[in-house]
Amino acid sequence: MIVNRNLKFGQVLFYTWKSILYYAVLSVLVYFLHHELEIDDLSVPFNAVALLSTALAIFLGFKNNSAYDRWWEARKIWGLLVNYSRAWGREILTLSFAVEGDPSGELDAWRHRLIYRHIAFVHALRVFLRGRHEYNNIDEQWIETSNTYDDIRPFLSAAEAEEVLSKENPPNYLLMIQGRELLEAHRRGWLSDYRFVQLSQTLTEFNNHQGKSERIKNTPFPRAYSFFSRVFVFLHGTLVPFAFVEVLGIFNIPLALLINFIFLSLDQIGERTEDPFENRPSDTPLTSISVTIEQNLKEMLDETDLPQKTEKIHGVIF
Amino acid sequence: MIVNRNLKFGQVLFYTWKSILYYAVLSVLVYFLHHELEIDDLSVPFNAVALLSTALAIFLGFKNNSAYDRWWEARKIWGLLVNYSRAWGREILTLSFAVEGDPSGELDAWRHRLIYRHIAFVHALRVFLRGRHEYNNIDEQWIETSNTYDDIRPFLSAAEAEEVLSKENPPNYLLMIQGRELLEAHRRGWLSDYRFVQLSQTLTEFNNHQGKSERIKNTPFPRAYSFFSRVFVFLHGTLVPFAFVEVLGIFNIPLALLINFIFLSLDQIGERTEDPFENRPSDTPLTSISVTIEQNLKEMLDETDLPQKTEKIHGVIF
Amino acid sequence: MIVNRNLKFGQVLFYTWKSILYYAVLSVLVYFLHHELEIDDLSVPFNAVALLSTALAIFLGFKNNSAYDRWWEARKIWGLLVNYSRAWGREILTLSFAVEGDPSGELDAWRHRLIYRHIAFVHALRVFLRGRHEYNNIDEQWIETSNTYDDIRPFLSAAEAEEVLSKENPPNYLLMIQGRELLEAHRRGWLSDYRFVQLSQTLTEFNNHQGKSERIKNTPFPRAYSFFSRVFVFLHGTLVPFAFVEVLGIFNIPLALLINFIFLSLDQIGERTEDPFENRPSDTPLTSISVTIEQNLKEMLDETDLPQKTEKIHGVIF
Amino acid sequence: MIVNRNLKFGQVLFYTWKSILYYAVLSVLVYFLHHELEIDDLSVPFNAVALLSTALAIFLGFKNNSAYDRWWEARKIWGLLVNYSRAWGREILTLSFAVEGDPSGELDAWRHRLIYRHIAFVHALRVFLRGRHEYNNIDEQWIETSNTYDDIRPFLSAAEAEEVLSKENPPNYLLMIQGRELLEAHRRGWLSDYRFVQLSQTLTEFNNHQGKSERIKNTPFPRAYSFFSRVFVFLHGTLVPFAFVEVLGIFNIPLALLINFIFLSLDQIGERTEDPFENRPSDTPLTSISVTIEQNLKEMLDETDLPQKTEKIHGVIF
Amino acid sequence: MIVNRNLKFGQVLFYTWKSILYYAVLSVLVYFLHHELEIDDLSVPFNAVALLSTALAIFLGFKNNSAYDRWWEARKIWGLLVNYSRAWGREILTLSFAVEGDPSGELDAWRHRLIYRHIAFVHALRVFLRGRHEYNNIDEQWIETSNTYDDIRPFLSAAEAEEVLSKENPPNYLLMIQGRELLEAHRRGWLSDYRFVQLSQTLTEFNNHQGKSERIKNTPFPRAYSFFSRVFVFLHGTLVPFAFVEVLGIFNIPLALLINFIFLSLDQIGERTEDPFENRPSDTPLTSISVTIEQNLKEMLDETDLPQKTEKIHGVIF
Repeated sequence: MIVNRNLKFGQVLFYTWKSILYYAVLSVLVYFLHHELEIDDLSVPFNAVALLSTALAIFLGFKNNSAYDRWWEARKIWGLLVNYSRAWGREILTLSFAVEGDPSGELDAWRHRLIYRHIAFVHALRVFLRGRHEYNNIDEQWIETSNTYDDIRPFLSAAEAEEVLSKENPPNYLLMIQGRELLEAHRRGWLSDYRFVQLSQTLTEFNNHQGKSERIKNTPFPRAYSFFSRVFVFLHGTLVPFAFVEVLGIFNIPLALLINFIFLSLDQIGERTEDPFENRPSDTPLTSISVTIEQNLKEMLDETDLPQKTEKIHGVIF
Repeated sequence: MIVNRNLKFGQVLFYTWKSILYYAVLSVLVYFLHHELEIDDLSVPFNAVALLSTALAIFLGFKNNSAYDRWWEARKIWGLLVNYSRAWGREILTLSFAVEGDPSGELDAWRHRLIYRHIAFVHALRVFLRGRHEYNNIDEQWIETSNTYDDIRPFLSAAEAEEVLSKENPPNYLLMIQGRELLEAHRRGWLSDYRFVQLSQTLTEFNNHQGKSERIKNTPFPRAYSFFSRVFVFLHGTLVPFAFVEVLGIFNIPLALLINFIFLSLDQIGERTEDPFENRPSDTPLTSISVTIEQNLKEMLDETDLPQKTEKIHGVIF
Repeated sequence: MIVNRNLKFGQVLFYTWKSILYYAVLSVLVYFLHHELEIDDLSVPFNAVALLSTALAIFLGFKNNSAYDRWWEARKIWGLLVNYSRAWGREILTLSFAVEGDPSGELDAWRHRLIYRHIAFVHALRVFLRGRHEYNNIDEQWIETSNTYDDIRPFLSAAEAEEVLSKENPPNYLLMIQGRELLEAHRRGWLSDYRFVQLSQTLTEFNNHQGKSERIKNTPFPRAYSFFSRVFVFLHGTLVPFAFVEVLGIFNIPLALLINFIFLSLDQIGERTEDPFENRPSDTPLTSISVTIEQNLKEMLDETDLPQKTEKIHGVIF
Repeated sequence: MIVNRNLKFGQVLFYTWKSILYYAVLSVLVYFLHHELEIDDLSVPFNAVALLSTALAIFLGFKNNSAYDRWWEARKIWGLLVNYSRAWGREILTLSFAVEGDPSGELDAWRHRLIYRHIAFVHALRVFLRGRHEYNNIDEQWIETSNTYDDIRPFLSAAEAEEVLSKENPPNYLLMIQGRELLEAHRRGWLSDYRFVQLSQTLTEFNNHQGKSERIKNTPFPRAYSFFSRVFVFLHGTLVPFAFVEVLGIFNIPLALLINFIFLSLDQIGERTEDPFENRPSDTPLTSISVTIEQNLKEMLDETDLPQKTEKIHGVIF
Repeated sequence: MIVNRNLKFGQVLFYTWKSILYYAVLSVLVYFLHHELEIDDLSVPFNAVALLSTALAIFLGFKNNSAYDRWWEARKIWGLLVNYSRAWGREILTLSFAVEGDPSGELDAWRHRLIYRHIAFVHALRVFLRGRHEYNNIDEQWIETSNTYDDIRPFLSAAEAEEVLSKENPPNYLLMIQGRELLEAHRRGWLSDYRFVQLSQTLTEFNNHQGKSERIKNTPFPRAYSFFSRVFVFLHGTLVPFAFVEVLGIFNIPLALLINFIFLSLDQIGERTEDPFENRPSDTPLTSISVTIEQNLKEMLDETDLPQKTEKIHGVIF
């Protein structure tokens, strides 16, 4: 998530320089052909371009709207994960009661285990989501962050960590283990039937948060929409230098570039926003949220050695 | 679901070649009549076309927006099916308790049966939804996939499979059997009153997922909207070659084609997206999701012979 | 609900012929006055019309969007009614248990009664919603269907039917009777406290489905919006023939008609869609959904004499 | 809520005559200065106006959309109030059981009291919402209705009515009393722990309906949006007469008025709709809904002296 | 929250005077260069500007829509906090029962403590949200309000206040203490298992309200969108004075200023609305809502010394 109010020129160029170069060369070429070689037929009536511009602007509006919705939904899901993680901590600590004859410390150990395993779940889900699909063709970014499953080891026993990491879907498997531990607590008498089901429902919330995140991750914005938006921007942009070349002369070059830069940007900001889990600067800040959850839950356990808040780097919080 | 970022030229032409041919012939004809036969009156003022273009672009924006909403809602429903399928697996395995005197293995067999029958439900729902309504006139696609009720046989006893497949609505009938099995488990004492109702509520979630999918399947986007959008694109497209023929001469042909191609595409990508259960490349990937659920549930049962993930073919995941 | 992909010319004209006639006469008149009587001042600058066209197109986009939302919400509500009707059938059959000493068949009779009364509720709600408010001024339609309270008699005893039909709000009264029957079942011991409340909550869902449908039925799309949209289309359409009369001559007549036909259609398809319970071809298909529910519930009771699916007539499913 | 399909000319003028007068005077003035005094510089290029028109139309589209959303949400909230009021009636009558040794009629009196107090709550909420904030500057309307707290007296004992009406927030206080009565019923044994909490949750629904209504009431549509929309319509409207004065001559007067009338109306219909609880003709029909609830609940108590449905007056239902 | 219907000229200029000055100087400069120094090439074709205007208007429409959604969602969240605070008060007072042998007044003290601590939670959340992120660069406002943690001291014991304020996240810690008090009440027998979990779920609602507010607070509207909207308004605004300079002469100066003022305002009102928790006049009125909750809960405790309603200052309610 970019938090600096102003983007740097270099960041903008990082993703658009190829297209801008193309439009610059084209503008110069059109000017040269028209005014130097005097090929007059090169001009395209402005009206034809304007007709496309309106349709394109509406289409890009739709695309940006949908991209933002995906990004914001991703943030909402992880917001819910924060809320229910705090509720999970509170419920584990207040809904389980010791019974007569418990060996000393067993309930406390159980509580500690269920809260730490939940922290592991959150980190595991982050790493799971930040993996990249080969078909998304994500290029190198100007800034990245690290996400590895080693981040979950401090919160699990060594054996459990090995077992979990051997699975196809580690976060889901962690929820399964949590369910088994609840069953065990019920058998021990720490949970009544009613409080047991209540905690099981909270696990179902986590099933939902995971599944909803996976949905966004695994379902790209329909390719037809984004493919054609790129194609339309390109076709429209290619016509633009021809539209004013006759009237404007050499000033046509900066003006055509300006117009193309704006349409190109409108397309690109949607493109960056629509996939929020790709380990890019415009991502939903999963790392930062994971650390907040870890911090909150450790504080509930009265621990004092809390993790540091994620700092912004180059104006970005991951 | 198309996952490749770039569509192939052939795929685009597959659905649009007839219209494109019409516009091409028309453009040539208009040029010929105007410039060769010098019928000057053929020209239509650009302004009249532009007036329609704006209205058309706004209408297509609305259509694409609605089509995308339908497609995305379909994906959301099947996402919920994933989440609650995992929850169902966890609940069946952790909310049912053995009682004194159970014959060995009966509870385990019951658990296995309820989870396998759920996998059958998911596959049955997929096949049920992928059937085509005659009134939708879905043409042959450039790529299809197979969906037959035989896919559910491995997860049911032979007798049960026969019974289920003789019904009008097989997936709904499977949920009814699940309900009867819960009742039996309650009678046996494996489920308390409270946990019994909790599992019954999870079945109600599946009623919802099925019913919501059927709603999208059986309720086409209002025909008036899609009919008129096709008619308007056609009328507008027919006027376009007349609008610039005077100014542009022979260059009118490619330009008119370009404009018409863009409006045609805007209409067609909505058309492809609005019905997400028609066994087409742009479908919601029901097969892939079904296999994921099967995989997750089998993993929860500690099985190791998991089904293969659905691979993309020609850039499409079904 | 219209299911045929293509509307017939006659259907379109059925609702629009008066307006089209007006615009046709106007176009001819304008042409005659301008070119025959040579009253040159009659022309209106195209720009003034275009300025209104954009505003009008945006407003019609908003109207169509809202109309579609109402129509789709109506369909969603009745989709929920399908889902919870199936859940109701399953719950009635699996959440009620016989107790020692029940006279034979009493519980089965009770179950049968609660499911049949629910079918009666669904049909009663359909008939209730399909009544027409005098203030809506719904004209005769090119195709209608029958909805009478006699449709609910087969599912109730004669006495109960009389009582129900004497009430102001028959569907709501049926839910009240269902509640009383649940109370009786609790008294008999067939329902525990917990399962009793669960079934009562399902009745609350039906309260919601009924109330939400009534909301759409009784709250027309704000009259100011639809009134002004009709007025604007009329004013704009009246200016259109004046805008090109100078440039185009006699071709002005078909072009003005074409433009007006498009704006008129954009207005009319919203107008038809915004009230989905008026027994019109564009209605939400209440009859078809009611029959599906009847079919599903009878199948759950192992009946074999299921009602026929509603067939399409002239491309319409009611 | 206006239910007549056509607005009367007088109603439209009631809210707009001042602005229309301004635009009329301005148009005449511009014509006079231009054509009589021949001040040619008065003309403004049409293009500059058109550029603003598009931006303005989009902005008004956004405003109308948001205003409609507020109005429709208000109606949804009161629709939920209808649904849960019916559920409340059913729950009070079927979830409370007499116990051995109850003095005769006490439970019935309690049921009657809780249902009548709920009717009082609904009327009290209506009166509470229909009060006007001084800062909203609502002018006199062409038709109003009466809303006074005396409407709730018939449903409460005299003492209770006095107590309730002395509070800052009478409807909320009524819910508090309902909660105390539930507690008493639990103490008497009429409600089990479980059914008690179920009824308490239904009260929480009413907390939500009240609070959501208060939110809309107390949070005007952001003033910046509506202030600037009025300013933009005024600025744009002031430019319009200058745009065609040169081309059109005296016909400029009706045309400029027509264009301004349309933009003015687009602004005003949003303005009327955005605040749905101000005792205006365009209000959400709180009176009518309150009476429906009263009618439904009395019918459930087998009363026969039901209140009359609210009739429309001058095409308006309050 | 601004409640006055009309903004004052000074308020509008407060945020925009720098930009307006820039456009004024530019317009004068362009006029001077063109008409005095007669540099004719300075003109830009109007069409090029208009093409950008449409795209910009659509983009600003999207931005305003999203900003309003954020603002309105913030208000909805705090509306829910009002509703559930009232429900919390009612539940604490009616769902906890005294048991035989309680020392006199202990239950009442407990109830008082839980309700007062909730008031502290609401004020703490307000102060927490009104803190400013350094990266948001919020300038000084023309009117501000005070938000300090001292506001929560009257509702907590001195020791508890110290403990709470030493935490990273004071509001969340208050909810944790509430959970512990519920556990204690369960141990004392004041709450049954079932009512205990019901109250715990109400705490989860508060987890949700806090977390949702934090989401909006900590996740700015994607910077790319707001950065580019400012850039586009600037680029477009810079071109505007060149577009009419040839036709209009000196009148170009006011007209260009007018157009730029409108686009600038459209951008700025979104900018002010999108972050609703920054202690600015356009904020969601957290102070006013907090006081309402305090008032309602104290009234439920039969206190008579209620806090004053927040008054508007300069037309603003904080």
